[in-house]
Amino acid sequence: MPRRVYLDWNATTPLRTEARAAMLAAWDLIGNPSSVHAEGREARRLVEEARSALAAATGALPRNVVFTSAGTEANALALAPGLKSPSGGPVERLLVSAIEHASVLAGGRFQANRIGQIRVTRSGVIDLDHLKEQLGDGPLALVSIMAANNETGAVQPVAEAARIVHEAGGLLHVDAIQALGKIAFNINAVGADLATFSGHKIGGPKGVGALVVAEGIAGLEPVLRGGGQELNRRAGTENVAGIAGFGAAVRAALQTLPEDVERMTTLRNRLENGLRGVAGGTIFADDVERLPNTVLFTAPGLKAETAVIGFDLEGVAVSSGSACSSGKVQPSHVLSAMGYDATVAQGAVRLSLGWSTEPNDINRALEAWRKLGNTLLRA
Amino acid sequence: MPRRVYLDWNATTPLRTEARAAMLAAWDLIGNPSSVHAEGREARRLVEEARSALAAATGALPRNVVFTSAGTEANALALAPGLKSPSGGPVERLLVSAIEHASVLAGGRFQANRIGQIRVTRSGVIDLDHLKEQLGDGPLALVSIMAANNETGAVQPVAEAARIVHEAGGLLHVDAIQALGKIAFNINAVGADLATFSGHKIGGPKGVGALVVAEGIAGLEPVLRGGGQELNRRAGTENVAGIAGFGAAVRAALQTLPEDVERMTTLRNRLENGLRGVAGGTIFADDVERLPNTVLFTAPGLKAETAVIGFDLEGVAVSSGSACSSGKVQPSHVLSAMGYDATVAQGAVRLSLGWSTEPNDINRALEAWRKLGNTLLRA
Repeated sequence: MPRRVYLDWNATTPLRTEARAAMLAAWDLIGNPSSVHAEGREARRLVEEARSALAAATGALPRNVVFTSAGTEANALALAPGLKSPSGGPVERLLVSAIEHASVLAGGRFQANRIGQIRVTRSGVIDLDHLKEQLGDGPLALVSIMAANNETGAVQPVAEAARIVHEAGGLLHVDAIQALGKIAFNINAVGADLATFSGHKIGGPKGVGALVVAEGIAGLEPVLRGGGQELNRRAGTENVAGIAGFGAAVRAALQTLPEDVERMTTLRNRLENGLRGVAGGTIFADDVERLPNTVLFTAPGLKAETAVIGFDLEGVAVSSGSACSSGKVQPSHVLSAMGYDATVAQGAVRLSLGWSTEPNDINRALEAWRKLGNTLLRA
Repeated sequence: MPRRVYLDWNATTPLRTEARAAMLAAWDLIGNPSSVHAEGREARRLVEEARSALAAATGALPRNVVFTSAGTEANALALAPGLKSPSGGPVERLLVSAIEHASVLAGGRFQANRIGQIRVTRSGVIDLDHLKEQLGDGPLALVSIMAANNETGAVQPVAEAARIVHEAGGLLHVDAIQALGKIAFNINAVGADLATFSGHKIGGPKGVGALVVAEGIAGLEPVLRGGGQELNRRAGTENVAGIAGFGAAVRAALQTLPEDVERMTTLRNRLENGLRGVAGGTIFADDVERLPNTVLFTAPGLKAETAVIGFDLEGVAVSSGSACSSGKVQPSHVLSAMGYDATVAQGAVRLSLGWSTEPNDINRALEAWRKLGNTLLRA
């Protein structure tokens, strides 16, 4: 049997060799990082090394990196009423783009009636005029915009958004979970006040994420309370091995980023040309800057559920939009926000590549698509 | 150099062989458990196997096991206003024993003015008369009592507490984090409505915990919202390897429980006799049932901070009370609740044993104590 082709890297990635090694080493340390004995101090050292790696990769100071259990928890922690910059007052409402991840759309600790949405264009890019409009009308706002969308791959104008938000006295949170390791991202270059990251999207383990905060941002109240870990911003014994694995993955991801981008872009372009060549296949958001690894496509009459199963039977793992809503079969909220109707939104299939994707994986995916396109769509 | 002696098992334990093997196997599965392709289904299977293991070990139904990132998060999830039994109304206030873990004392999602405390005796056991008194006076309550205390090891009368709480129409949450793998614990035998567990206290990895709920309990609102994972009770991509390791550790811990208890009890008794024999050493809560592995002791003039460092330099890892409050040097709230003054509470040292503790570890600890007791205390 030929080996499986994995083209669902935006849902989760394989564990990197460097992350495995770091975790194995961490397993041999018995201590709790909060303990003062030698075993505890050794565990603490690993956590702090990983914190430095995250800080270096994102432009934050180490003391402003808060490790969490995942991107979802990092987003929940970030979206807090009362956050304030050194010069400004506390934020009282939240504005999120309509294409955010479910954990951002949930709004963190803002009341439902204090949350507004910002429109996106037909190409899945945030409408900055609508952002300005929304900011002009109400109390100080925290704005949450992702660096790149997990379904379409569309890169968002977060640096421009930061300028607009800051002019209005607000704060910007950037969910950079899909961007890290795929495009350059630095909170200082962007001007982000808070940014969130996830381990398992860059070759680290599942079960670890991070919130980084710009220097001077105050008012971050913990979601999980109890022990004084993470400088009182996140209680609970640290996931030492997971954090060490995350740190190692971040280091590895940034090291090979330029080559990875080049290789993924070439393969992605070949994949897209092939998909377009069969059964009227079209690619979403293909007129804007996208992540180098993400392809969301459809064809007339395509049903994503059937297509995903069809690809799977051909040995190719792909996704129908986001994998983050367990068991929910719903039209993609991202495509709905882009103005597509439910039929189109239920017919979108996502193929996402990674650092170990090979030319033959693309061939196999295109073979499967030719087969499926010529049978499924005619039926 | 002689090998280190680790006697801080209540802070965290070494990773069990079985947990390592389960995690290594999980690392080779690429998928996100929410994905429908083969890789996703394989990951899902591991999570569900671990869920069955937790259910079997605790007496819950698998569908009533919610995996979290740690005991702290499980406690935060459990302590929710609005929880209700099939026959009763929703709980509106919280009563916690004065010796609970910091993550329970924080009160979850109850407002500070809806949280009351229940006294404990001089031996560190909850005062059931005070519980009755508190229950009689106010709206329906959720009561949170730990199965066994992490500092003294004192086992709490949770089954009696359950009867009292249920007679008053309330619900009982039991933090069973220190009890699991050290004494028998089953939610049905106890009559607990909710119970929390942690992976790294039983030889599983750090970064995973669980809340189990009795059948029929409703009104559990998620702390982390977004994706539909854990039947909409806990959003975020599952820590697949961590969960698999937790499941394997639970299975292993319960299998050897009877022998472990016998062996730990014998060693613990030897340790206590030795500690009592030097410099007026006394053991806390030694007139009540305790965990077979936990010794909290002091001697006139002992300073815990100095003693922990002294033991560490002798190659023995011990603790000064709870390790869960990173960087905080405070008198133990447990000993304060038991009526000891700050001097005593700052002089308590905890030694806790585990499944791989050997007779020679006890000898080494006692040698260190003789040396320390005869020098430190005289100074």
